[in-house]
Amino acid sequence: MTEPFHLSASQAQIKFNDGSLTVEEYAKSLLSRIEARDSAVHAWAHLDPELVLQQARQLDQIPSEKRGPLHGVAVGVKDVILTKDMPTQHNSPIYDGDAPKIDAASIAVLRANGALIFGKTTTTEFAATSVGPSHKGPKTANPHDPSRTPGGSSSGSGAAVGDFQVPIGLGTQTVGSTIRPGSFNGIYAMKPTWNSISREGQKLYSLIFDTLGLYARSIDDLKLLLDTFQLVDDEPEEKFEVKGGTFALLTLPTPDWPEPGPGTAAALKKGAELLRSHGAIVEEITLGDEFRPMYKYQMQVLTGDGRVAFLPDYYTAKDKLDSYLVGHVENHGKHTRKDQLKAFDELAAMRPKLDALVDKYAAIIAPSALDEAPVGLENTGNAAFCGPWTAMHMPVVNVPGFQGEDGLPIGLSVVSSRYRDQHLLRVSREVGKIFEAEGGWTRKL
Amino acid sequence: MTEPFHLSASQAQIKFNDGSLTVEEYAKSLLSRIEARDSAVHAWAHLDPELVLQQARQLDQIPSEKRGPLHGVAVGVKDVILTKDMPTQHNSPIYDGDAPKIDAASIAVLRANGALIFGKTTTTEFAATSVGPSHKGPKTANPHDPSRTPGGSSSGSGAAVGDFQVPIGLGTQTVGSTIRPGSFNGIYAMKPTWNSISREGQKLYSLIFDTLGLYARSIDDLKLLLDTFQLVDDEPEEKFEVKGGTFALLTLPTPDWPEPGPGTAAALKKGAELLRSHGAIVEEITLGDEFRPMYKYQMQVLTGDGRVAFLPDYYTAKDKLDSYLVGHVENHGKHTRKDQLKAFDELAAMRPKLDALVDKYAAIIAPSALDEAPVGLENTGNAAFCGPWTAMHMPVVNVPGFQGEDGLPIGLSVVSSRYRDQHLLRVSREVGKIFEAEGGWTRKL
Repeated sequence: MTEPFHLSASQAQIKFNDGSLTVEEYAKSLLSRIEARDSAVHAWAHLDPELVLQQARQLDQIPSEKRGPLHGVAVGVKDVILTKDMPTQHNSPIYDGDAPKIDAASIAVLRANGALIFGKTTTTEFAATSVGPSHKGPKTANPHDPSRTPGGSSSGSGAAVGDFQVPIGLGTQTVGSTIRPGSFNGIYAMKPTWNSISREGQKLYSLIFDTLGLYARSIDDLKLLLDTFQLVDDEPEEKFEVKGGTFALLTLPTPDWPEPGPGTAAALKKGAELLRSHGAIVEEITLGDEFRPMYKYQMQVLTGDGRVAFLPDYYTAKDKLDSYLVGHVENHGKHTRKDQLKAFDELAAMRPKLDALVDKYAAIIAPSALDEAPVGLENTGNAAFCGPWTAMHMPVVNVPGFQGEDGLPIGLSVVSSRYRDQHLLRVSREVGKIFEAEGGWTRKL
Repeated sequence: MTEPFHLSASQAQIKFNDGSLTVEEYAKSLLSRIEARDSAVHAWAHLDPELVLQQARQLDQIPSEKRGPLHGVAVGVKDVILTKDMPTQHNSPIYDGDAPKIDAASIAVLRANGALIFGKTTTTEFAATSVGPSHKGPKTANPHDPSRTPGGSSSGSGAAVGDFQVPIGLGTQTVGSTIRPGSFNGIYAMKPTWNSISREGQKLYSLIFDTLGLYARSIDDLKLLLDTFQLVDDEPEEKFEVKGGTFALLTLPTPDWPEPGPGTAAALKKGAELLRSHGAIVEEITLGDEFRPMYKYQMQVLTGDGRVAFLPDYYTAKDKLDSYLVGHVENHGKHTRKDQLKAFDELAAMRPKLDALVDKYAAIIAPSALDEAPVGLENTGNAAFCGPWTAMHMPVVNVPGFQGEDGLPIGLSVVSSRYRDQHLLRVSREVGKIFEAEGGWTRKL
C-alpha cells in the first residue's frame, strides 16, 4: 500500500481535493516517516510535530473554495531562511536558539498560498562553507547510503526530499548548494533565474549570486512552485518534445575545471545517447576562452561579498565564526577592489553572451556534480560544475536518473538562458521522463 | 551655551572621553530637542524615550577601555531597517505594530561598536514611493520650513539630522532617497558604493540598486561610520587639496533629464566659481550618448525588481499595498523579460566606462535635487538627478552650503568611482569647508 508520505505534493493535493486524505493525516504520515528515518538521516535542524499538526488542522478547516494553490503542500525549509514560528540558527553557535518573529519573502508567499511550513532543515554554517553540517550540527547523511554526504550547503532539504520525509524543500545556492545535493540525493532540484524569487529574509552571502533553490521529486511539484512565485517567461507555454529538439552537451564547462568522475562521465554519455535515441540532436560543445575565467571571477566576487556579509557576525562573535569566513572579512587573500570590480563587471558582460549561445539550443546538458556522493560527512563535495550557471544567473534543473559505480544517484544539469524558467521546466519534464525511465537508477522507497 | 544636542557625534565623543558629558545626559538633551520640535517636524515613526535612556545608561557603565569606536553615537534609523528592540513598520498598514526580534546587518554593526540606536524615522511606503510619508503616516516636514517636504523616501532621518534631533541617521537609496533629503535638509548625506555595506535586514525593493544611506552634519561623523563599516579603498589615505585639483562639473547628467531649477543652477554655478577661486580646475562636461538611456534602464530594472520584491505583500494584503506597487507586481507596464535583461546588462556595461571617465577627475560635481524643497508634504520630490549614480553603484556625498530663492538649503552631489568611498570623503571634506563657508546658506540652530 502506498502510504501518504510516498506522495508528491501534487499527488497529495489530488487526495485533499477528492476528500480521501486530510492534511493532518498526510502530516502524520510524513512525521512517522521522519520518526522512522531521522536517526539515520538527521535532516532536521528544528522540527516541532505539535506545531505541524496544529497548522495542518487549521488548513483542513479552510473550506475548499478558499484553499490556496499550495494547500497542504509540506515544505522543509533550509535553516538560513527566516520563519516567524521557528528558530533560524544558520548552523552557527552565534544564532543558537535565535527565533526572530519574521518570515522570509519566500515563506510569506508559500504560507499565503496554503503551504504547510514543516520545519527547518540542516545547512552548512551560513550556507557559506563546504564543511559538512556535522561540523557544528547534526550529522546529516545521504538517505541512499548513510556513510555518504547528502551534499551541501542545502544538506537537510536535499536529504529530506530524497528520503520521502517531505515532498518539497527549500535550499539556497551561491555556488552549487542546491544543484549538487539534488544530484547526490536523486531528486529534482531547481535554481531559478537570479532574483526571480525574492531572497529577502534569507541569510546573505552574495547579493549577486545567492538564489533560492527548490527541491521536489517531480516536475509537477516544481511547476506548482514556479507558478506560485509567478515566474512567467516572455514566450507562451507550449509543449516541448525531445524528438526534433536540439541540445548542447557541455562535458567540461571550461577547460580550467575539474574532470568529471567516472559516474558523471558515464551519465553524460548515456544522457546524450538517450536523447538521441528519442530523436533529439545533441551537439557536443565547449565554452570559448572568453568564459575561461568565470569560476575565478566568481570566487573573487564572492570573497568581496563575504567581506561585507559577515562583518556583523565578525563584530558580534569573531571567535564563533568559521575561519574561512573570518578570512573573507579580514581579506586574507588581499584582494583589491580593482580586481573585485573587474571580476564583477566581466561576469556581467558574459551573461548576455552566454544567453545568446544557449538560446541556440532547447537547453544545455551539463554535469551537476563531480560524481556520485563521496563517502564521509565532513565535506559536502565540490561545487565547481554548478558555479557557472549561478554566476551567469541562468536557471538550472538537476534531473535525476543515473547512478554511479557504487549505485548512488547521479543527475545531470539542464540549463537555459535567464528568465526562461518555465521553458526549462517543460524541457526538464520531457528529459526527466527519459532519464528516470532509462537512465539506470531507480528511487527506492 | 551650546546644548549637547547641538553636538555632532564626533564632538559628543570628545566629551564622553574627557568625562564632561555622559551618554545619558546627551540622550536627554536629544530627547528634549525632539520634544520641543516634534510637533512641527514629525520625524519619528517610533521613539521610546525610556528604552533610549536605559541603553544610554548601559553605555555609560562600560569602562572606557572597553568602549567601541561608536560609543554613545546616537542613530536614527529609517523605518525600513530591522531593529530587534523596536517595531519596523515600513509606513505600511500591513506592518502596523510589527516588531520582529532581529537586527539588520547595519544595526548589528552599529550596536557592536557602541552606537545608541535611538528610534525609527519616517519613510514613504516601503521606501518605494515618492508619495510623502503623510500619505499613510506622520506628516514629516522640512525643519527649515514646515510647509515644505523634507524629501524622501528617507524623510524622517533627513529631517531629524537637519533639525539637531539626532546627529546620525540611516536612510536607504534605490533611486534618490538619501541624497535628495540631504539637499533639502541642508546636511551631509552619503550613498556609499553599492554593496559596500550589507543591506541585509533592510526592506528589499531592488537587489541591484538598494543601498544603505548615511546622514550627518559633519564629515567627521561620516568618517566614523565608514571606518566602522570597514570601507577601505585600494589607495592609501592621503590628504586631498582643492588647490590644483581637477573637478568635472556635470550640469545635466544626460540630455534627457530635467533642467535644474534656478536654485540648483545657481548652486552649480557658484560651486564651480568657489572651487576655481580656491585654485581648482573645473571642467564642464556632459555624458555621451551611450549613457543617455541610463535612467530609462534604471526604471525598467526597478519595475522588474518591484514585481519580485512586493509579491509577498501582494499575496498577503493586496488591498493595503500602494497602487504603484500593485502595478509592479501585476506588471501594468507590460515589460518583457527581454527588455528587463537588456536594461540590466546595459547598465552593467556602463559601470566600468563611467568609472574610467570619473577617474580622470578628483570628483564629479552634480546636482542633488531639482531645486530647494518644494512646498507641500504630499510629494517628496524628483529623484532623477540621483538615479544615475545609484544605477552606476558609485558613491555620492551631498555637500550642503547653498540656498534657493526662498532661502531653503541646497546641496551639490560630489561623486567618485566605485570603491573610492574614502577618497570621496576626503574630497568632500575640503569641498564642504568651502561650500559651507562661502556658499551662502547657514544652518540655524
